[in-house]
Amino acid sequence: MLLLDGKKLADELKLEIKQSVDALVAAGKPAPHLAAILVGNDGGSLTYVGHKVKACEQVGFQSTLLHFDENITEEFLLNEVKKLNENPSIHGFIVQLPLPKHIDADKVLMSVDPAKDVDGFHPVNVGKVTLGLPAFVSATPLGITKILERYGIETSGKHCVVIGRSNIVGRPMSILMSGQSKTGNATVTVCHSRTKNLAEVTRQADIIIAALGKPEFLTADMVKDGAVVIDVGTTRVTDPTTKAGWRLKGDVKFDEVSQKCAAITPVPGGVGPMTVVSLLLNTLQAAQE
Amino acid sequence: MLLLDGKKLADELKLEIKQSVDALVAAGKPAPHLAAILVGNDGGSLTYVGHKVKACEQVGFQSTLLHFDENITEEFLLNEVKKLNENPSIHGFIVQLPLPKHIDADKVLMSVDPAKDVDGFHPVNVGKVTLGLPAFVSATPLGITKILERYGIETSGKHCVVIGRSNIVGRPMSILMSGQSKTGNATVTVCHSRTKNLAEVTRQADIIIAALGKPEFLTADMVKDGAVVIDVGTTRVTDPTTKAGWRLKGDVKFDEVSQKCAAITPVPGGVGPMTVVSLLLNTLQAAQE
Repeated sequence: MLLLDGKKLADELKLEIKQSVDALVAAGKPAPHLAAILVGNDGGSLTYVGHKVKACEQVGFQSTLLHFDENITEEFLLNEVKKLNENPSIHGFIVQLPLPKHIDADKVLMSVDPAKDVDGFHPVNVGKVTLGLPAFVSATPLGITKILERYGIETSGKHCVVIGRSNIVGRPMSILMSGQSKTGNATVTVCHSRTKNLAEVTRQADIIIAALGKPEFLTADMVKDGAVVIDVGTTRVTDPTTKAGWRLKGDVKFDEVSQKCAAITPVPGGVGPMTVVSLLLNTLQAAQE
Repeated sequence: MLLLDGKKLADELKLEIKQSVDALVAAGKPAPHLAAILVGNDGGSLTYVGHKVKACEQVGFQSTLLHFDENITEEFLLNEVKKLNENPSIHGFIVQLPLPKHIDADKVLMSVDPAKDVDGFHPVNVGKVTLGLPAFVSATPLGITKILERYGIETSGKHCVVIGRSNIVGRPMSILMSGQSKTGNATVTVCHSRTKNLAEVTRQADIIIAALGKPEFLTADMVKDGAVVIDVGTTRVTDPTTKAGWRLKGDVKFDEVSQKCAAITPVPGGVGPMTVVSLLLNTLQAAQE
């Protein structure tokens, strides 16, 4: 069984990004500059944004964090987005989700300049990805394709089953895996909450991408021998034995599935670290254009 | 076996559209106005645009055909698109494909105002459809969902196999069928030229959407008893017994598959007529907004 080590791969990619940044700076150009807008004090969001800022530092990016009170108006936020759109020193920026309920997240995401939308959430980027055109691919799907690519996992002609149809993982993964690219050309089945006989479907899969957000959902009996398993789940489950009182659980019952499959991503240390590094890759691309 | 009569359904929908147009006009508003840009003299394109103009007349729409020489420049065409974008009397317009090779079709489609993009080809509309947001759904996929809806074909929890991953049919159909809508919620498998053991996959399907453009490709042995079969193929094959010297063939071997399935669209008279009427539905929607 091959462990698809996202942490190690992310570290390698960060070194490569650092080299590209050094080359940009040596050529007299500014280092890539990523800005993040954070509204309110959601614990998860604070952690995620913190990881992103730290990752920027590691690769030599400039970073700016705009942290606003949860009571700001939608109008205020739209104006901040506008300022980032118009600021030539910012190459890319993200608006950390979720936003407070009184703010229309779709409206805010629509207002981001697609050329700076390094999260790949704007409909223009989603549409281009769907059409197979060059665009910012959102971070988690991009991270998964990098894992497949760097570990040389063959996808062409394989049967890939994606569990989940969310806009940030399941949907784009199903499009990318069935598209015409070097980590595409798979026959792809999209499964979700309405799917009947899910285990019958997953047992046919050469590649399983589990992105439904249910801890340890995918068990060994649902996986055929020699399958490749990508675990996108990151649910915090209570664990009094840890310092934090919780730990991350994936959507895959790792102990039993790992005995059976050809390759698998662990949680933590699989898809998660690749998500942050993918945001860096998109920002580097934005700065190079 | 239920014949899914797209011609009859299209006629019914045209009557309903006509009633909506009459209501608009009675309320003192202008009738919906569809414009079409046609470049060159491709035989198929002339026929398709002719059908669209005729359909406009049938439902009381205004229509404008801009027919340009195949030697026009890209710049000229982009300027014509700009004029239509800015013309308040035009509610929606289409640029008939294919365009001559010296013109960048993606660039032209990107220049169409998404609010007038009744073909649903602009990345913003494609992206919104992918994200499950309200948008113009392109005509053939919209026509197929109307057939499923009006004939009361249950899709939720069914296994739908889409053969083909083109941007105008296969890709959007796979997204719509697996999305959260009344003609969605299916488990969807996308098959294409790289798919291995295609017949094994299609034999599992409750619903098959054949959109690969190979006449009579889908044979009875590839279909399970009681499946619903949607035939999107429209290939002209030589036939000296007809006046035109050719006739349309679908992707499904109708004579044998129709014996086995629960419901099927014929070719011609199935998806084709629904495609034209879907363009009218989108234009009506554009005029009502």
